[in-house]
Amino acid sequence: MPNTIGHLFRVTTFGESHGPAVGCVIDGCPSRVPLTEEIVQLELDRRRPGQSRIVTQRQEQDRVEILSGVWEGQTLGTPIAMLVRNQDTRSRDYDELRDKFRPSHADYTYQAKYGIRAWQGGGRASARETVGRVAAGAVAKHWLRLAFGIEIVAYVSSVGAIEAAVDPSTVTVPEVDENIVRCPDVAVAQKMLDLIESVRKEGDSIGGTVGCVVRGVPSGWGEPVFDKLEADLAKGLLSLPASKGFEVGSGFSGSRMLGSEHNDAFRSNGEGGVLTPTNSSGGIQGGISNGMPVLMRVAFKPVATIMREQDTVTTGHEDTTIKGRGRHDPCVLPRAVPMVEAMTALVLADHALRQMTARWGPETGPPVKEV
Amino acid sequence: MPNTIGHLFRVTTFGESHGPAVGCVIDGCPSRVPLTEEIVQLELDRRRPGQSRIVTQRQEQDRVEILSGVWEGQTLGTPIAMLVRNQDTRSRDYDELRDKFRPSHADYTYQAKYGIRAWQGGGRASARETVGRVAAGAVAKHWLRLAFGIEIVAYVSSVGAIEAAVDPSTVTVPEVDENIVRCPDVAVAQKMLDLIESVRKEGDSIGGTVGCVVRGVPSGWGEPVFDKLEADLAKGLLSLPASKGFEVGSGFSGSRMLGSEHNDAFRSNGEGGVLTPTNSSGGIQGGISNGMPVLMRVAFKPVATIMREQDTVTTGHEDTTIKGRGRHDPCVLPRAVPMVEAMTALVLADHALRQMTARWGPETGPPVKEV
Amino acid sequence: MPNTIGHLFRVTTFGESHGPAVGCVIDGCPSRVPLTEEIVQLELDRRRPGQSRIVTQRQEQDRVEILSGVWEGQTLGTPIAMLVRNQDTRSRDYDELRDKFRPSHADYTYQAKYGIRAWQGGGRASARETVGRVAAGAVAKHWLRLAFGIEIVAYVSSVGAIEAAVDPSTVTVPEVDENIVRCPDVAVAQKMLDLIESVRKEGDSIGGTVGCVVRGVPSGWGEPVFDKLEADLAKGLLSLPASKGFEVGSGFSGSRMLGSEHNDAFRSNGEGGVLTPTNSSGGIQGGISNGMPVLMRVAFKPVATIMREQDTVTTGHEDTTIKGRGRHDPCVLPRAVPMVEAMTALVLADHALRQMTARWGPETGPPVKEV
Amino acid sequence: MPNTIGHLFRVTTFGESHGPAVGCVIDGCPSRVPLTEEIVQLELDRRRPGQSRIVTQRQEQDRVEILSGVWEGQTLGTPIAMLVRNQDTRSRDYDELRDKFRPSHADYTYQAKYGIRAWQGGGRASARETVGRVAAGAVAKHWLRLAFGIEIVAYVSSVGAIEAAVDPSTVTVPEVDENIVRCPDVAVAQKMLDLIESVRKEGDSIGGTVGCVVRGVPSGWGEPVFDKLEADLAKGLLSLPASKGFEVGSGFSGSRMLGSEHNDAFRSNGEGGVLTPTNSSGGIQGGISNGMPVLMRVAFKPVATIMREQDTVTTGHEDTTIKGRGRHDPCVLPRAVPMVEAMTALVLADHALRQMTARWGPETGPPVKEV
Repeated sequence: MPNTIGHLFRVTTFGESHGPAVGCVIDGCPSRVPLTEEIVQLELDRRRPGQSRIVTQRQEQDRVEILSGVWEGQTLGTPIAMLVRNQDTRSRDYDELRDKFRPSHADYTYQAKYGIRAWQGGGRASARETVGRVAAGAVAKHWLRLAFGIEIVAYVSSVGAIEAAVDPSTVTVPEVDENIVRCPDVAVAQKMLDLIESVRKEGDSIGGTVGCVVRGVPSGWGEPVFDKLEADLAKGLLSLPASKGFEVGSGFSGSRMLGSEHNDAFRSNGEGGVLTPTNSSGGIQGGISNGMPVLMRVAFKPVATIMREQDTVTTGHEDTTIKGRGRHDPCVLPRAVPMVEAMTALVLADHALRQMTARWGPETGPPVKEV
Repeated sequence: MPNTIGHLFRVTTFGESHGPAVGCVIDGCPSRVPLTEEIVQLELDRRRPGQSRIVTQRQEQDRVEILSGVWEGQTLGTPIAMLVRNQDTRSRDYDELRDKFRPSHADYTYQAKYGIRAWQGGGRASARETVGRVAAGAVAKHWLRLAFGIEIVAYVSSVGAIEAAVDPSTVTVPEVDENIVRCPDVAVAQKMLDLIESVRKEGDSIGGTVGCVVRGVPSGWGEPVFDKLEADLAKGLLSLPASKGFEVGSGFSGSRMLGSEHNDAFRSNGEGGVLTPTNSSGGIQGGISNGMPVLMRVAFKPVATIMREQDTVTTGHEDTTIKGRGRHDPCVLPRAVPMVEAMTALVLADHALRQMTARWGPETGPPVKEV
Repeated sequence: MPNTIGHLFRVTTFGESHGPAVGCVIDGCPSRVPLTEEIVQLELDRRRPGQSRIVTQRQEQDRVEILSGVWEGQTLGTPIAMLVRNQDTRSRDYDELRDKFRPSHADYTYQAKYGIRAWQGGGRASARETVGRVAAGAVAKHWLRLAFGIEIVAYVSSVGAIEAAVDPSTVTVPEVDENIVRCPDVAVAQKMLDLIESVRKEGDSIGGTVGCVVRGVPSGWGEPVFDKLEADLAKGLLSLPASKGFEVGSGFSGSRMLGSEHNDAFRSNGEGGVLTPTNSSGGIQGGISNGMPVLMRVAFKPVATIMREQDTVTTGHEDTTIKGRGRHDPCVLPRAVPMVEAMTALVLADHALRQMTARWGPETGPPVKEV
Repeated sequence: MPNTIGHLFRVTTFGESHGPAVGCVIDGCPSRVPLTEEIVQLELDRRRPGQSRIVTQRQEQDRVEILSGVWEGQTLGTPIAMLVRNQDTRSRDYDELRDKFRPSHADYTYQAKYGIRAWQGGGRASARETVGRVAAGAVAKHWLRLAFGIEIVAYVSSVGAIEAAVDPSTVTVPEVDENIVRCPDVAVAQKMLDLIESVRKEGDSIGGTVGCVVRGVPSGWGEPVFDKLEADLAKGLLSLPASKGFEVGSGFSGSRMLGSEHNDAFRSNGEGGVLTPTNSSGGIQGGISNGMPVLMRVAFKPVATIMREQDTVTTGHEDTTIKGRGRHDPCVLPRAVPMVEAMTALVLADHALRQMTARWGPETGPPVKEV
């Protein structure tokens, strides 16, 4: 559904960038999960613009208010509605957009779809919509950690052609957040920063990739056929603004491998379970988690808003030019990190609940998770 | 939902590889679409194993029977159930699988999920499940062509490290089907064929990529936020067996570009509409089609079944080895081509119907599609 | 889904009676529908408590704020979030409820389901939840009137054993709202009022029925099989608090009739269409509207809160007694009228959109509605 | 969705009365439920026409074939597809229907909706569609009994004005099936039989009601707000052909009661739990089961096909007459009994699975069901 994701842990987001508010409703969060506004605020602060000189300087407070579903510090099992008021909407910056479509933005396509668009600042297509995702993702991430010990860590893995070396088996969120690029490879992070700075000075923008690892996913999550775990993750991550590609495990490099190189042998883990010494599968086989870390990578294109004159058309489809103005993000990657974690958490929380209903039998009682 | 895809054009598939039958039910196909079994059979024949020496030699007739929803050569608007009986199930080849998990197959994860598995030949995780997808996709593709003039063309774009040069603006299905590799770059196709042959002789397998172009999608299809057109396409394509990555438009290469290189300028098309001379966006902006060709690429890993001894564990989690036997596909790519087209068609048919309900207004009457 | 209704016109409500706010999100409302807060406020005012001496005296302002999805007086096609802050929450009245379950309320069952409950004033089970339904229903009703000329009129058809005589082919909303019982049979309305007053004085409550007619539904709405129009209406109306029964057309009285009495003969309407001189079918045949008025009736039980001592148990399951205190509704019927209209509108708006995708064919172009 | 019911235990039915087959696909049945074709066949035999002189004499074998999802006598967790071939389709009886709409049938409305209809024998609107429901319901009922000890018993509670006296706390399926009317009040059953016989001789038909009790539903099933347990049951039962009304607990009679009469006091059950000595609530409070028996009643109109001449219109909307011919059911009630049980089972199985995901908390581990 257009603005809802999830089958059991369902999240609906709402809001335009220059309307009164943005937010979300979570329906299906289990009851009795300890929850406070602070837990959500922490993730919103990571997403917030204006945190450093390399991201957009829009000053937004982004204070979240929980409107329902939480009572005396615990979830009730009822919908959790969360609200963030919009502020700092300098809409004069946008006057030109009334009559022109910005290249590689969604202005033209929204007009084509709906016959109307909120032309200031992107409206619903603005990255500001991700406030609702990150708020909901904070709840999902929190519950996954409490209930299953799951750790989700995303990080900037490349900016332009600069690639970082990151060990997904050990990387932590504090390591990622240590620098403003959110790249845990410190030496490379400085090079990325230099590149972003130089791009910004030229009024241009640059793309990159975000890696993400999830440690602690039990085996058995994900559904065969259409709702494969990697399929739902791909959908969640390609629904983020500016994303253009997704890989799980070996990804595109796997397409160049032989089966004998690619296959992940199983070995006993010495504790009654199994493991795979290699992880080309990225923790998912046949659409279902196998207990190994889930490994993903997402490609983001360069931000469409640049401070240069570009060819475009008017809303009447006549040729003209346009030039970006105001504040802009030369590189969306650092702020994409909490968004990638949020979407990953939403998909996993949904599959965690789904797996509770997969098995039954008169001899077995309620669902169990061991193989 | 596990075995259903689509919100308005909904397809449910069913069947295990070694059970009585596989098939699908389409719910939501509009009424009065001309439809016969031959239209569906044509696509099933393209998917069928045993077509050439480089794909699995399993002989399957795969004759489809339409059980409902079609009457006097037209769809009724009611569910279209389609059935293909299983045959040629040499299950003795599979006896070893009762007690061992095959590396990089779904044996272990199905057991982890359900506590039971149909261990002969992959069961529900077998590529045979795609019969239902291809049958349903044939109906979707047929309707998209009749109603909108849409052309969907997939082709093998690489095998291992061998890359083809294909022009998505002109490539046709007959060009693709002309050779058994389904690569329309004829010179490169021969090299791919040689590589696959040599891999097969060594009992190994090899991965590759499938490109796909869709020409004729009107602007306005796709939903903002979660059900972005590229997000739903990514999900559909990553739900195919053995797929590991997905790109739209510039994809991962877009992550290495500057905004000034990547942006697609708008120009008047001289007929009252617009076009973009470049197409980094791959025909989708802000999750919504812009009228330009939709461009995608999907990575497939090498087939997991190889004729070599590999380390694995027993179902009791003790170390052992296993060796593939019987028939196998050294390269899934040629047969993946109709599957990619089918999934693309299913996603587009769903969004075609969705778009019919996007707009309204007392002055406008029923939905219109012009900008 | 628990807190969402509708497949294309989807409404999610949120909020507890004693939390910060209640509200809703509409996803799927077509774009370009003229919409203002006043249109919604009008219906909320009809639902509001404290309007007359026979309904609860809680003073609530219930001012709605539209947070998103509307721009310059028109819908954008994006989610419409609406918010109503809670006020006047005298929670001391509720202290006893911490430790006791009220008879025929949802206290016990929420505790059984979730292991936690917001024990002040019913929480999510409070009739206050219907604020979100009525707000969303106002938008649906407004659009159905603008786009199709549909009129939805609900009215109190009985209180206790007192039955009104109402002509569904002519009754109007102003006639209904003329008296505080919302019964358009003026003579009977006074008797109802007297009964409610006498019940109130005894600290008791009384049930009744609400009739509802919808005029102007085109033929062809509703789906065969599970989503029959009457099935979805039944679900919508039985999801209202305190409802215990639903009838369409002849209803239970139809079960006592012969086929020769019950059948609705078709006749030409003299303008190229058809009509049925009788309407036992209640405007729906085989789950699909036939163009005649849709006729329904809903039974509501007496309000569970009464000012008398009743047997109950503690939360520890020990026998005790409880007595209602504070303000209460001796008869929910007058306030149920706008709720019944709202739920009817939500179901019809959903099916209006669904019908836009039911038909197609190369010769027919987009969906048409004529037989 | 039109032809699918359920959120977690999802059933899709397919098939026209005069096409090749009818059937269903169950998606979401837990794995490891013992299942055979015999279990399903038993319920299909109860539904089958031609069982006695008071129901239609169409001879149908209705042998079910399970196509998938079951392996070595247990469910796999994958879709269970079931097929019943159509036979005995005397379509010459139907030639007149090509050009005329039968009164109070779905001929006209299907034509209005789809612009096409399978005019022989009702097509999708035929009661034959319920084969798929009953087959799926058999699986649900079987699992509910094995896993929770739930008993579902439906029975004919009235035919025309003749009402039976049935004790829902004790009535059993064998008692119901003992006579061909399926009314467990033996004395009254004979009167019903006489009435049906006399109606049949006059070429007419007669309506009635079916009562249904469910014993053993744990407390906590059902969702607040839209998916209340009684709302989903109402939808399920009003989706049956010919149903016109639904009641839960006190139903319409509750609308004539005082709160002091209607409320169900709670009492300790002496074993740590609670009970209510009365059951006006019909086992559901606030949309959630309270552990008491669920009590329902469904009204069915008289069958529309009668052996008399009736006014109607041609497909060109001109006045004419029509007279039923061939075999017909003078009273649908006895065959409605297994259909009511099937729909009840489908709704309950869905809510059984939903409840598994309602609660969580770091201190509680997986969901528990005790209060």
